[in-house]
Amino acid sequence: MMEISEFAKNITQEHTQVVPISLFVAILCLCLIVGHLLEENRWVNESITAILIGCVSGIIILSITKWKSSHILRFDEELFFIYLLPPIIFNAGFQVKKKQFFHNFLTIMMFGVIGVFISVSIITVGSWWLFPKLGFMGLSIRDYLALGTIFSSTDTVCTLQILNQDETPLLYSLVFGEGVVNDATSVVLFNAVQKIDVRELNGKAALRIFRDFLYLFSTSTILGVTAGLLTALVLKTLYFGKHSSVREIALMVLMAYLSYILAELLELSGILTVFFCGIFMSHYAWHNMTDSSRITTRHTFAMMSFIAETFIFLYVGMDAFDIEKWRMSKLSFVTSLGVYSALILMILLGRAAFVFPLSLLSNYMNSHRSPSISFNHQVVIWWAGLMRGAVSIALAFKQFTYSGVTSDPDSATMITATIIIVLFTTLVFGFLTRPLVKYLLPHPQHATNNSCREPKSPNEDMNLPLLSFDESTATNLLRAKDSLSMLLDRPVYTIHSFWRRFDDTYMRPVFGGPDSNQSQC
Amino acid sequence: MMEISEFAKNITQEHTQVVPISLFVAILCLCLIVGHLLEENRWVNESITAILIGCVSGIIILSITKWKSSHILRFDEELFFIYLLPPIIFNAGFQVKKKQFFHNFLTIMMFGVIGVFISVSIITVGSWWLFPKLGFMGLSIRDYLALGTIFSSTDTVCTLQILNQDETPLLYSLVFGEGVVNDATSVVLFNAVQKIDVRELNGKAALRIFRDFLYLFSTSTILGVTAGLLTALVLKTLYFGKHSSVREIALMVLMAYLSYILAELLELSGILTVFFCGIFMSHYAWHNMTDSSRITTRHTFAMMSFIAETFIFLYVGMDAFDIEKWRMSKLSFVTSLGVYSALILMILLGRAAFVFPLSLLSNYMNSHRSPSISFNHQVVIWWAGLMRGAVSIALAFKQFTYSGVTSDPDSATMITATIIIVLFTTLVFGFLTRPLVKYLLPHPQHATNNSCREPKSPNEDMNLPLLSFDESTATNLLRAKDSLSMLLDRPVYTIHSFWRRFDDTYMRPVFGGPDSNQSQC
Repeated sequence: MMEISEFAKNITQEHTQVVPISLFVAILCLCLIVGHLLEENRWVNESITAILIGCVSGIIILSITKWKSSHILRFDEELFFIYLLPPIIFNAGFQVKKKQFFHNFLTIMMFGVIGVFISVSIITVGSWWLFPKLGFMGLSIRDYLALGTIFSSTDTVCTLQILNQDETPLLYSLVFGEGVVNDATSVVLFNAVQKIDVRELNGKAALRIFRDFLYLFSTSTILGVTAGLLTALVLKTLYFGKHSSVREIALMVLMAYLSYILAELLELSGILTVFFCGIFMSHYAWHNMTDSSRITTRHTFAMMSFIAETFIFLYVGMDAFDIEKWRMSKLSFVTSLGVYSALILMILLGRAAFVFPLSLLSNYMNSHRSPSISFNHQVVIWWAGLMRGAVSIALAFKQFTYSGVTSDPDSATMITATIIIVLFTTLVFGFLTRPLVKYLLPHPQHATNNSCREPKSPNEDMNLPLLSFDESTATNLLRAKDSLSMLLDRPVYTIHSFWRRFDDTYMRPVFGGPDSNQSQC
Repeated sequence: MMEISEFAKNITQEHTQVVPISLFVAILCLCLIVGHLLEENRWVNESITAILIGCVSGIIILSITKWKSSHILRFDEELFFIYLLPPIIFNAGFQVKKKQFFHNFLTIMMFGVIGVFISVSIITVGSWWLFPKLGFMGLSIRDYLALGTIFSSTDTVCTLQILNQDETPLLYSLVFGEGVVNDATSVVLFNAVQKIDVRELNGKAALRIFRDFLYLFSTSTILGVTAGLLTALVLKTLYFGKHSSVREIALMVLMAYLSYILAELLELSGILTVFFCGIFMSHYAWHNMTDSSRITTRHTFAMMSFIAETFIFLYVGMDAFDIEKWRMSKLSFVTSLGVYSALILMILLGRAAFVFPLSLLSNYMNSHRSPSISFNHQVVIWWAGLMRGAVSIALAFKQFTYSGVTSDPDSATMITATIIIVLFTTLVFGFLTRPLVKYLLPHPQHATNNSCREPKSPNEDMNLPLLSFDESTATNLLRAKDSLSMLLDRPVYTIHSFWRRFDDTYMRPVFGGPDSNQSQC
């Protein structure tokens, strides 16, 4: 053991960057393979696999470095916000099922925006009230507010892997849409909270947070939409594919990244910008590319998002054994346990407090909608958002550390609490999701292997034969007719139908896109 | 102007990473668009465009920062060797026309290995003899040796864009193959030179360099081949495509990168490893993927390589106006000019000294080969390797700076000399390449737009209809028959035919690959 640690030490000193990168890449490869082998397993999902492998690697590294350190990389929240988050969010926007997303736009926004506000208030007030009673003090008001946003960002990947998009399209669309909007809202709100003056916290300050939020939301959206449309316009007018498809792919990747980084530079919300950029790129720009570029971009974005996500969960697993932070936190075992339980309780409550009322509201507003959100569906939506993931971790590091390092015991406690809660919710809640969904949505097809075989539903349309337009034109025509008659039945969707007419008449001729008959998904 | 510089200063202090990244990404986008618009221009190529845009940006930044600095990023040679070089070299291996490459393997290796040795000796001895006469002293023997390797690595992209692969397949294959092997040899030799003890420089030391070189060459190759075969085996046995094509693409990208970074960790030559990894991945692993993954990997690797290359040339353009380095170098204008001219003379001589003799040798050895290397072809090969590019810059920074910074006037002179020579050879020699090729290879088809329309010849097979196997089977069968009869005519290629038989009988059944009839390119 002595020799290994000596060897590790020597190598680490010589190649500061090379060692952690190669270790991480090797572990990522391992994750890929193990994840694939466990694909048909009923209990485990991608995130759980990555976290568990991260834990094991953490223990191994800990034993090699003689119980000094369990991670190979310092978690730099800049690394996360500059390199890991953009591909994940962009891919979510790029692969979003636009038809379903925009059909349920109002409900999704209610869950994703108003819901987060409710959840943040409950978690903030709840922890501010409970923590001192549990014997944990030392957090400022700003910390409590940050805590609210940190634990309001959900991670719905796990549930999405289990839901069947064809059987329950409304449910799937709501869970997926809320998951994405929720991430954006949490980050925007987190940034808005950073700016307020906590000394005078009253109605005015709350109003100011809301105003800041609206400003960030609208400007970020506009920037993302502009970037997407600009790319579409450039691709359409210059038609890069004529010479080489490499350039058009490179342009799309670079413009997407540029929109994110510009938003960060202008102190807007890059996450919202890149999400809308993704939606508009896949709606317009994507159609102006050659066939092979279309296949490439879809797969490339999915792959980058996949690698970034796995990377983050691996890191969370490794960081769970970061002895330093555990030592630094000076709480007793019982108090720590109390803090964790209080937080999990708040998460459960905060989510219940908006999912059920807002679902009822949505059902009332869309009374013409044939499949309303049943109680069982409401429970699934509530459960789907209980998992906490990458965004929570990143926000916690941003709030409570300076470049991944902290010397304050209270901050260390909050970091370990975040990691514990991400681990607990992902492992325990994630583990229980499949049985719960099977119990709540009892359908013979759920038990078959069919739903297991295609678990990556958000990406499943990539497997469609993208090149065979002849076949899909017919089915799309049918779909178009269906949805037209549906639109006439539902007055709530008039906005959507107006938008579609505007899109077909003005946007598509300028920015590109398929014939309106083919544009249903 | 004052306000802009103040604004720039404020922003830079707040976002240390965000500003340079967003500027660089924006300029990269500009490069892409301008490069596309100039595609049909007869004189300019990609590298020249990027360098010129880099120069303009450099001047603008210089004026904004009040003539203090012209670059936004410090050139860290770790950035280059860890992130930018691997995709370029891997892509070269991945897209290599394996049939032509292995048919001309011996000649390519002669040019790429023996040629570099000859060129290094001439440049080293020449500069060691000339520099003191020009009044420039202060370089150590190790510096002169490094100088030899720095200026022996060529950049053949420019010529490859002009040559027509179908008209002159032998010439194209030699220029492409030499360009790739040459990069690898220069880097390996550079590393070998770093290790020698310069105090006792005699025959023994030269032998030791050669021994080190052989050791690095063989171990690196073995590592690359192993990584490629391992990926093929994993992809074949686990068949990821069953569940999601995202995982197989991710695995290929990660394994390729892992091979590079492992080689660097073991102090081998990552560049050779990743090159052979690319060849073996495209020969075996690529065939074990789903159709859409095949298209995606080809395009993704080409795109990454393209972005990395453009990035480097942009940087070279910007660095040309780095006032600091110019001030630091204390040579007079005349002496500087003398040093530059001497280096260019050495480059011209060093290349001539091996291209012409080795071509004659190759013609003699392959006397049965129907198209021998004519004198005009030899001149084109000589000319194609005169341009200096990214690898030279990176090696120069590695030798003469510490993380991109130098305080030694002699080192600063060598950095500026390298940049001047890269600029001069790329701009002037690159500019003259098209007229020269047209003069030396007069062929009616060269004047048509046909050759301009498809200038990215190394990537052109990406545009082939990869999915339509029916069509290509027929043509490949014909090609296979052709090449079989050709093999019987040429005794020199018996090694190649043995390899093909071994490949068909043992390798392909285990590691995957197409039927031998389809495997001709």
